[in-house]
Amino acid sequence: MTYKSDIEIARAAVKKPIAEIGAKLGIDNSHLLPFGHDKAKISEEFIKSLEGKKDGKLILVTAINPTPAGEGKTTTTVGLGDGLNKIGKNATICIREPSLGPCFGMKGGAAGGGYAQVVPMEDINLHFTGDFHAITSAHNLLSAMLDNHVYWGNEEQIDIRRITWRRVIDMNDRALRSIVASLGGVANGYPREAGFDITVASEIMAILCLANDLEDLQKRLGGIIVAYRRDKTPVYCRDIKADGAMTVLLQQAMQPNLVQTLENNPAFIHGGPFANIAHGCNSVIATKTALKLADYVVTEAGFGADLGAEKFFDIKCRKAGLEPSAVVIVATIRALKMNGGVAKDALGNEDVDALVRGCANLGRHIENIQKFGVPAVVAINHFVSDTDAEVQAIKDYARSVGAEAILCQHWEKGSEGTIELANRIVEIAESGESNFKPLYEDDLPLLGKIEKIAKDIYRADKVVIDKKIENQLREWEAAGYGNLPVCMAKTQYSFSTDPNLRGAPTGHAIPVREVRLSAGAGFVVAVCGDIMTMPGLPRKPSAEAIHLDANGEIQGLF
Amino acid sequence: MTYKSDIEIARAAVKKPIAEIGAKLGIDNSHLLPFGHDKAKISEEFIKSLEGKKDGKLILVTAINPTPAGEGKTTTTVGLGDGLNKIGKNATICIREPSLGPCFGMKGGAAGGGYAQVVPMEDINLHFTGDFHAITSAHNLLSAMLDNHVYWGNEEQIDIRRITWRRVIDMNDRALRSIVASLGGVANGYPREAGFDITVASEIMAILCLANDLEDLQKRLGGIIVAYRRDKTPVYCRDIKADGAMTVLLQQAMQPNLVQTLENNPAFIHGGPFANIAHGCNSVIATKTALKLADYVVTEAGFGADLGAEKFFDIKCRKAGLEPSAVVIVATIRALKMNGGVAKDALGNEDVDALVRGCANLGRHIENIQKFGVPAVVAINHFVSDTDAEVQAIKDYARSVGAEAILCQHWEKGSEGTIELANRIVEIAESGESNFKPLYEDDLPLLGKIEKIAKDIYRADKVVIDKKIENQLREWEAAGYGNLPVCMAKTQYSFSTDPNLRGAPTGHAIPVREVRLSAGAGFVVAVCGDIMTMPGLPRKPSAEAIHLDANGEIQGLF
Repeated sequence: MTYKSDIEIARAAVKKPIAEIGAKLGIDNSHLLPFGHDKAKISEEFIKSLEGKKDGKLILVTAINPTPAGEGKTTTTVGLGDGLNKIGKNATICIREPSLGPCFGMKGGAAGGGYAQVVPMEDINLHFTGDFHAITSAHNLLSAMLDNHVYWGNEEQIDIRRITWRRVIDMNDRALRSIVASLGGVANGYPREAGFDITVASEIMAILCLANDLEDLQKRLGGIIVAYRRDKTPVYCRDIKADGAMTVLLQQAMQPNLVQTLENNPAFIHGGPFANIAHGCNSVIATKTALKLADYVVTEAGFGADLGAEKFFDIKCRKAGLEPSAVVIVATIRALKMNGGVAKDALGNEDVDALVRGCANLGRHIENIQKFGVPAVVAINHFVSDTDAEVQAIKDYARSVGAEAILCQHWEKGSEGTIELANRIVEIAESGESNFKPLYEDDLPLLGKIEKIAKDIYRADKVVIDKKIENQLREWEAAGYGNLPVCMAKTQYSFSTDPNLRGAPTGHAIPVREVRLSAGAGFVVAVCGDIMTMPGLPRKPSAEAIHLDANGEIQGLF
Repeated sequence: MTYKSDIEIARAAVKKPIAEIGAKLGIDNSHLLPFGHDKAKISEEFIKSLEGKKDGKLILVTAINPTPAGEGKTTTTVGLGDGLNKIGKNATICIREPSLGPCFGMKGGAAGGGYAQVVPMEDINLHFTGDFHAITSAHNLLSAMLDNHVYWGNEEQIDIRRITWRRVIDMNDRALRSIVASLGGVANGYPREAGFDITVASEIMAILCLANDLEDLQKRLGGIIVAYRRDKTPVYCRDIKADGAMTVLLQQAMQPNLVQTLENNPAFIHGGPFANIAHGCNSVIATKTALKLADYVVTEAGFGADLGAEKFFDIKCRKAGLEPSAVVIVATIRALKMNGGVAKDALGNEDVDALVRGCANLGRHIENIQKFGVPAVVAINHFVSDTDAEVQAIKDYARSVGAEAILCQHWEKGSEGTIELANRIVEIAESGESNFKPLYEDDLPLLGKIEKIAKDIYRADKVVIDKKIENQLREWEAAGYGNLPVCMAKTQYSFSTDPNLRGAPTGHAIPVREVRLSAGAGFVVAVCGDIMTMPGLPRKPSAEAIHLDANGEIQGLF
């Protein structure tokens, strides 16, 4: 049997006009800002009009620790959304916008797969509705105004050695990681070390995804720390008077984007912060809007549940007052076998023993989710090479740890493949058994929060932290930032900080190398490993093969 | 009497849905790619379907040398377009897209003024339909792939000291003019000098504005020279294999943008190359599409006629095979008085003598336009402070040099204010008296072209050029680039290279400081003065005051 490629399936999709998709959610066409005939933004006015309406139920899709075998979190989010619609529920999904830059490095988009995709996939993966370009502009306006402030007299007494605000670009460009700027003489300013991150790593991306509305957005932008003065006091974005113009640049980007799935169900795609130095979830405004318009909203978090779900709960839900009703943990048999020690090229062979060994990783995530008080179900994202014995082995394992694993075939069959999962999720959500609470209280000291996550979620024995870093945390507490949640930046491949330690390791230590204050976004980042905020291109970038064919269709992107 | 501000007038506009504006031109809604309800791109398929249709008449709006007093070229372009519609003609306009960056430096947009504006002015001045963001992405993808090529082995033997392709950003950011990139160790590449220009200065902007279609676009992108090898041979964009992916990024940006005037007449706004190192006209594809859809197309060129009209004729019309029917030279009494030696703060006083002295500048432009075989009319863009005696003095002056000056009051009255001009333009266009020919033939040597422009248009006695630069031109001729037109980069404030030499100077010399080959765009730039391709922000950037008011409306931008 041969299967169609993702792009073939996406191109064969019969899309409905976006006005019809909006109408499904009760949005009048006048409140949709169209981008082409298949994408739209939802007006601020309409979103405001929803205040006081009852919320639907929120379902989080997360996963085991990622492996090169792939898990299919977005695909399952799309599949479950379609499945809920299939069984008669008014459901929608909320996912992140992909970044443009990485598309030119490695092949592959981020719009689901098989018969569980969102469309138009080319647009979504490229410029989409311009949100990331707006974030890039707003970020770099602040950078330019900052250097301009120094140039024209430096009234704020900024220490140019302590400018923390870098520049961004939505491109994989290693040459810009570390630069010296303002060279070339008096007219170009004061030479200093600087650099670029990729746009998704911008604190503005995190802010856009956590802000409730434009007023809140501007307030948070104003609170970004951009530099320190000679006397070590922080210089805020609002001191540079950039927050108003940045908000203007972001006005439209704050409006959630509406597209559709292959089955013509509404889908929100909005915002896409990094999942290491930021919280890795789509925007609060999209999730909240979706909850007002649908009875079921399926959303996803970045990386595995140790990072993604924890941040979804402790950062996004805490700040936005969201109450998730259920969690779906996506696992594939291939990925579990890798967790059980099988090499990538042997994944096609049945290996129940390795699978069961790898299930330790799944079991750990199931246990962890329980700590947040939200019921979890395992979704087995089916691959055509999976054997019946392997599927049965996961189901048995799940039952042995008091959970349930459901086979899902949305990749091959669309919503038909997730009916069982959808029914189970409705049952759980309607039972009201979820009793969500974050892992820690706001008033736990910052180091206490880091230790709590390290011990309860990563199952580390201890946190290793330098006195200097500990003092930094204390200073921030003294400055009034002690009530912020922490955002852990560590490898997504393991519960530990060693990416090669698969399965369910214990007894390890979590070294905190550095801490960063994202005062505008409202969290403290604990960096526990090498964190790359500007990727490079590979030896043979996929861009070399990307082109338009004779029919004007994009080739080589997927 | 008090007048409403441009922004007040623009916000009071009763816009029609863009589908209705498209319908006026015979474009079916399915061929319009909407961006909101008031902006759209026109599909490639529709543009292709127009092949073979008869062209309308093309009218160029140009101006005397600009002064701080303002001339109102865009305003007059809009006013004349509305005037032509008013007298029953099927007319449209084609103007350039403004750049985002400079909006945050000095106050002021670029969408006309008074009752002769295009709307929505906020969008047009900010992200609009994302064209400039797409150009920025395509440009920087090539930059990243170039450094990446060097990083992974440098198969093409690129001399990193001779990389000519810089990076771009749509922001006034002097700190990025001159940088050292790839610092920070082995993982970040080979340190080298680099820098950023503002996006409108990108050769890709010029290419987008000269390309006939996507195929032509990719061919021209491929022909960009990005660096030289150790053996001094050029490295092309196509050697780096970036042209395909860049075309994909620019696919949508190549589609012309449709908006409307305050009087609900269709307006094309597409592309905006620099008018010094590039040719300063809106895209060929917009102009050609407009000519297929309207009987009259009014367009504008950058700066004064010495630079703007010359490049419009010798670069754009030559390359695109356009045949303009008439030229409008815009002058204001205030600007002519400045040319006659009046200081800016004394412009409010009647001064017929100074005006007549300043008319020498106007007279020179009238003479110059005749060299291209196209009939010209002077439009006096009326200011409320102008006196009757002053208006009469220009009319008399124009008559004395065998031309005609018509008073235009579109700023105050919209199309009612340009009826006389519109009627006269129709008369000229229908008489068929235009007999357009470029100033020089393709096969004139490059230096000969520079000399021809310097002598015939700038009225210089001579061109001063270094032997080294002359040899460079000969080398390009030997390499097959001798048939390209030249693009003069000099001050817009004078016929000479001295910005303070107003009026109609003679006897000066034109020093060619540097020549640059824009091999993709297809012209040779002769740099005759300080050319700034990355502006800086002023001491008090307008961005400091830009913000959203309580109604979500943008304040401080205009």
